[in-house]
Amino acid sequence: MADRTASSAFVPGHITGFFTVHRTDDPLESGSRGAGLTLTDGVTVEVRPTEEPTVEIDGEPVDIESVTRVLDALDVDAAVSVETDLPLGSGFGLSGGMALGTALAANEVFDLARTENELTSIAHRAEVEAGTGLGDVVAQARGGMPIRVEPGGPSFGELDGIPVAGRIECLTFGELSTPDILQERPGLITEAGSTALESLLERPTADRFMVASREFADSVGLVTPAIDEVFETVDENGGTASMAMLGETVFALGTDLSGAGYDPLVSAIDVTGGTLLE
Amino acid sequence: MADRTASSAFVPGHITGFFTVHRTDDPLESGSRGAGLTLTDGVTVEVRPTEEPTVEIDGEPVDIESVTRVLDALDVDAAVSVETDLPLGSGFGLSGGMALGTALAANEVFDLARTENELTSIAHRAEVEAGTGLGDVVAQARGGMPIRVEPGGPSFGELDGIPVAGRIECLTFGELSTPDILQERPGLITEAGSTALESLLERPTADRFMVASREFADSVGLVTPAIDEVFETVDENGGTASMAMLGETVFALGTDLSGAGYDPLVSAIDVTGGTLLE
Repeated sequence: MADRTASSAFVPGHITGFFTVHRTDDPLESGSRGAGLTLTDGVTVEVRPTEEPTVEIDGEPVDIESVTRVLDALDVDAAVSVETDLPLGSGFGLSGGMALGTALAANEVFDLARTENELTSIAHRAEVEAGTGLGDVVAQARGGMPIRVEPGGPSFGELDGIPVAGRIECLTFGELSTPDILQERPGLITEAGSTALESLLERPTADRFMVASREFADSVGLVTPAIDEVFETVDENGGTASMAMLGETVFALGTDLSGAGYDPLVSAIDVTGGTLLE
Repeated sequence: MADRTASSAFVPGHITGFFTVHRTDDPLESGSRGAGLTLTDGVTVEVRPTEEPTVEIDGEPVDIESVTRVLDALDVDAAVSVETDLPLGSGFGLSGGMALGTALAANEVFDLARTENELTSIAHRAEVEAGTGLGDVVAQARGGMPIRVEPGGPSFGELDGIPVAGRIECLTFGELSTPDILQERPGLITEAGSTALESLLERPTADRFMVASREFADSVGLVTPAIDEVFETVDENGGTASMAMLGETVFALGTDLSGAGYDPLVSAIDVTGGTLLE
């Protein structure tokens, strides 16, 4: 509300449990149906006006296309500093989070007078055009455990959510480059994703989300040997684990990973969604 | 996610700055356009299964029609305990907050498997049927500084929001019974509310929200002498205050009330929206 030299925003991490692929000529219409969960761990993005635009993560210069596209769309030159405790490229939706955080913080520091839906649209478009995500941004803007009932940005898509609170555990084995199956057989993904969404909407609870996510992971052939081993151990222990789409990351509700003997990253369901920081 | 004997939810208080009135035969289509702000102060609602339904606020038995209607709609018998630091009947949207909080907590403790949009719809319908509000519930489900672009529950209405964080100050002079003008001349309210919304959408910022709210308050003739005196004092001090619709409550951004010599309730913009508590 006052003149500032920098503004900051927080955007939760987002783990996609299952998804479908919808691409059209319009990036705002493009997106995905599916469901996921947002985390109290995420990205904090600081935007500062500057003449020479830069982007850095935890102090290291990086090139993040979704962020540069947001700055271009808003027609501003800025230094963007991101801080995060989550690993890149591991299925936590960080590129979407950085895009949305940049949009929110830039709107404030440059006094651009855009609404939340407009900023979410700009970040969604940037993500889709950069080719780094289809459904993270709208989910991250909402928070909680979002269901993407219809694909696309705010003016096209439709969101709902599973009311849930509590602990989330994650275990990351490393980066996963976008598998060929996504490019070559999006129809297979979309078929499995639609089945999972149908199952979730029959009984929209956190437990059903885990089961539907696991069935999706098993059926699309993206499970790596390391992840499969965790699945089996957690199963034997009476829990349910699934895989973050797309990263070599396993996630579970409550203590299903630590209870099976693992030493996971401990987080929780986020309740804020992307938000400006004071 | 586990069997519980009680569940709790938090719902932010909501101050409406300006509004329009839309009533149809369908409570879910009924609602209001307008804008407001949600507060980090609000209601905490605990729901516990019981054979003899009761509702109490801060330990005192009360009869809150919106809450009873939510329990009826969900077909459950429960003891509902509400805690709040905000005064009733003063324009903080507490009946809407209690309705939504009851829906969220009851869904959890009775394992009803409803989605967030479904629970918001149930609470919105209860509020409209009880005659205690038209736009609080959808705003409280979203959090932040919500704009009700189109009226109605989740399946009919459309929301946007002003991205903003920070301190809010409020000063309450007491309860205000629903003024005759609302019943007798809803068209006048709706005309002034539409003008205010148009002004806000031209430049959707927190400052414009305050100016549009103040113009609305002045033009619909609801300002009481006590409130008018505060308006003038804050004006003279270079700030902007407006009136909570509908309560004898003044609100302002930042330190506009304390800076003018008042001793206000200090709160902040809520970023969570209605949410289940662990």
